[in-house]
Amino acid sequence: MKQIVQCIPNFSEGRDLDKIEKIVSPFRGKEGVKLLDYSCDEDHNRMVVTVVGEPEPLKKAVLEAVGVAVELIDMSRHEGQHPRMGAVDVIPFVPIRNVTMEEAVAMAKDVAAAAWEIYQLPIFLYEKAASAPHRENLAAVRKGQFEGMAEKIKDSQWHPDFGNQLHPTAGITAVGARMPLVAFNVNLDCNNLDFANQIAKNVRHLSGGLRYCKGIGIELKERGIVQVSMNMTDYSKTALYRVFELIRIEARRYGVNVVGSEIIGLLPMEALIDTAVYYLGVENFSMDQVLEKRIME
Amino acid sequence: MKQIVQCIPNFSEGRDLDKIEKIVSPFRGKEGVKLLDYSCDEDHNRMVVTVVGEPEPLKKAVLEAVGVAVELIDMSRHEGQHPRMGAVDVIPFVPIRNVTMEEAVAMAKDVAAAAWEIYQLPIFLYEKAASAPHRENLAAVRKGQFEGMAEKIKDSQWHPDFGNQLHPTAGITAVGARMPLVAFNVNLDCNNLDFANQIAKNVRHLSGGLRYCKGIGIELKERGIVQVSMNMTDYSKTALYRVFELIRIEARRYGVNVVGSEIIGLLPMEALIDTAVYYLGVENFSMDQVLEKRIME
Repeated sequence: MKQIVQCIPNFSEGRDLDKIEKIVSPFRGKEGVKLLDYSCDEDHNRMVVTVVGEPEPLKKAVLEAVGVAVELIDMSRHEGQHPRMGAVDVIPFVPIRNVTMEEAVAMAKDVAAAAWEIYQLPIFLYEKAASAPHRENLAAVRKGQFEGMAEKIKDSQWHPDFGNQLHPTAGITAVGARMPLVAFNVNLDCNNLDFANQIAKNVRHLSGGLRYCKGIGIELKERGIVQVSMNMTDYSKTALYRVFELIRIEARRYGVNVVGSEIIGLLPMEALIDTAVYYLGVENFSMDQVLEKRIME
Repeated sequence: MKQIVQCIPNFSEGRDLDKIEKIVSPFRGKEGVKLLDYSCDEDHNRMVVTVVGEPEPLKKAVLEAVGVAVELIDMSRHEGQHPRMGAVDVIPFVPIRNVTMEEAVAMAKDVAAAAWEIYQLPIFLYEKAASAPHRENLAAVRKGQFEGMAEKIKDSQWHPDFGNQLHPTAGITAVGARMPLVAFNVNLDCNNLDFANQIAKNVRHLSGGLRYCKGIGIELKERGIVQVSMNMTDYSKTALYRVFELIRIEARRYGVNVVGSEIIGLLPMEALIDTAVYYLGVENFSMDQVLEKRIME
C-alpha cells in the first residue's frame, strides 16, 4: 500500500499570476505528486496550495517550489492583510494514508534542513514537529511577522531550528506536521453575534470545550444569521457529530436553533463516515468495509 | 481518471479448498485487477468473489475464472442450500468510478458472448443488461434451478441470450450489470418477528415503500431481538438515512424502538457520506471535497 502525505504550503504571493504559475509548476506532471488545488487571495496577497503525494517525491517538489518562491518573492516589499513572516510562510505536512505522524514530522525536518542548506532559508519547526511546547502554535511562532523577525530570533526562546539569520528577502518559514484540519461551520437562526461567540467559547478547547476544536462566532451578513466557525484539529478524536450536537445543546440556552452547517475545502472521508455510523447506530463498522479504502490499498 | 468496475461472481463451489483456490487465482497478481474478498459458505456450497478493476483486464480475468469453474465444477453432482443454476451462477458488473451503467452493461454482454463462444456456456442477461423486463430479476431467471433449466430454456420466454443449450456440467449463468448493493439491517428492541416483517413490508418497494429497498424481517435469536434486513439496490436514489428514519417512524406503530443497525460487506463511501451530510445539515456539499475522491482521480 502506497504512503500518501498531504502538504499545504502557503506562499506570500496572491496577485502576480506569472509568479503564481512559476511557484505552482514544480507540483505539476510529477510521478508520485498530485496538485489538488491552489487558491489565491488578492487582499491577503497569499496563495494556499494543496498537494498530495508519496513522501520522497513530495518532499522534492515542495523544496523545488520553495526555491522558486525564495527567488521570486521579496518580503521587504510585501503587503497583505494576512499575518506572514516569509516568502513561504508555512509548510504543514499531514499524514493521510499508511503514514504515521512521526513519519510526517521526519519529512518536515528533512525539508527544513534542506531549505536552510540549499537556499539559506531559516526554519521554525511547529505543531507536532516543534522543538518546544511554546513553539507549537503557529500564531505564536509568527507573532512579530516579517518586519519583527530579525529582532525576534535574537531571543534564545526563538532561535530558528535551522539557520541562524533571516533570509534578506524571503524571511523565515514555519515547517511542521499536523493532523488534517476540517473547517466546519454551524449556522444559527439568529443574528446575534454574541450568541455565536458564546456558543463558540462553550464548545472550543481553549475555554473549556472539546479538545480538538477551535472556534469563533462570525456574522453571515448577507443572510442575516450568525455562525459558529470552527477548525476541527483532530476529527479522529473530536468527531464532527459531537461538536454539532453540543452546539445544538448550547444553542438552547439562547433560545436559538441550528439551521445548517458548511464544510470548507477538503476533508478525509473518515470524518464524515464516522458521523454517518454514529447517526445510523451501525454496530461493529470497520473502515475496511468502505470500497474506496480497499481500492486505494 | 481511471475507470473502475466491481464484479461479484458467485461460483457453485464452497467446500473444496483446492478448487476454490484455482477459481480465485485468475484474479491475483494481475495489472489493473484487484481481488478484494472471497467468502465461501459450506452449507450453500457457494463462493462469492469481490474483485475490482479496469474494464478490459477485469473482463479478461473474469472470463479466465469462468473457464476454470466450468472445468472444475460438475453441477450434476452439486448440492447446496442456496438456489443455483450454474457452475458460475451469476456475474454482476457494478460501475464504481468514471464508468456509466451503459458501459457496465456492455461489459456484461462482452463477457456473456465470450463465455458461450469459448466455453459453450449459455448465458441469461439480467438486471440492467436484461433483454426483456421479465428477465431482470435474478430470482425469476434462476427459478427451476440447474435441475429444471434444460426444460425451462425450451420456453421461448426463457431462451438464453447467448447459446442454445445447457452446458452438461456447468449449466447456465446469469450475467448482468447493476448498481452497488448495500446490505443494511436495522435492529429493533423486541423479539416479535411479525413486527419486523410488517415494518419491512412498509418500507420496501414491493409493498408500497421506498423504490430501491428490498426487505424482510429476521430474528437474531442469540440476542433475542428482531431485525429489518434490507438490500438497498440504489443508495444514490434511496438514501440510507431515509430508510433508517422511516423504520424509526414505522416502529412507533408497534411501540418498539430502533436500537442499532449493521452494514454487511462493502459499500461505496458516498452512501455513508451522503448520510452524514444529511444529519449535519451541510449546505452545498460536493463529493469533490472528499480528499480520497480527489486522490483517486
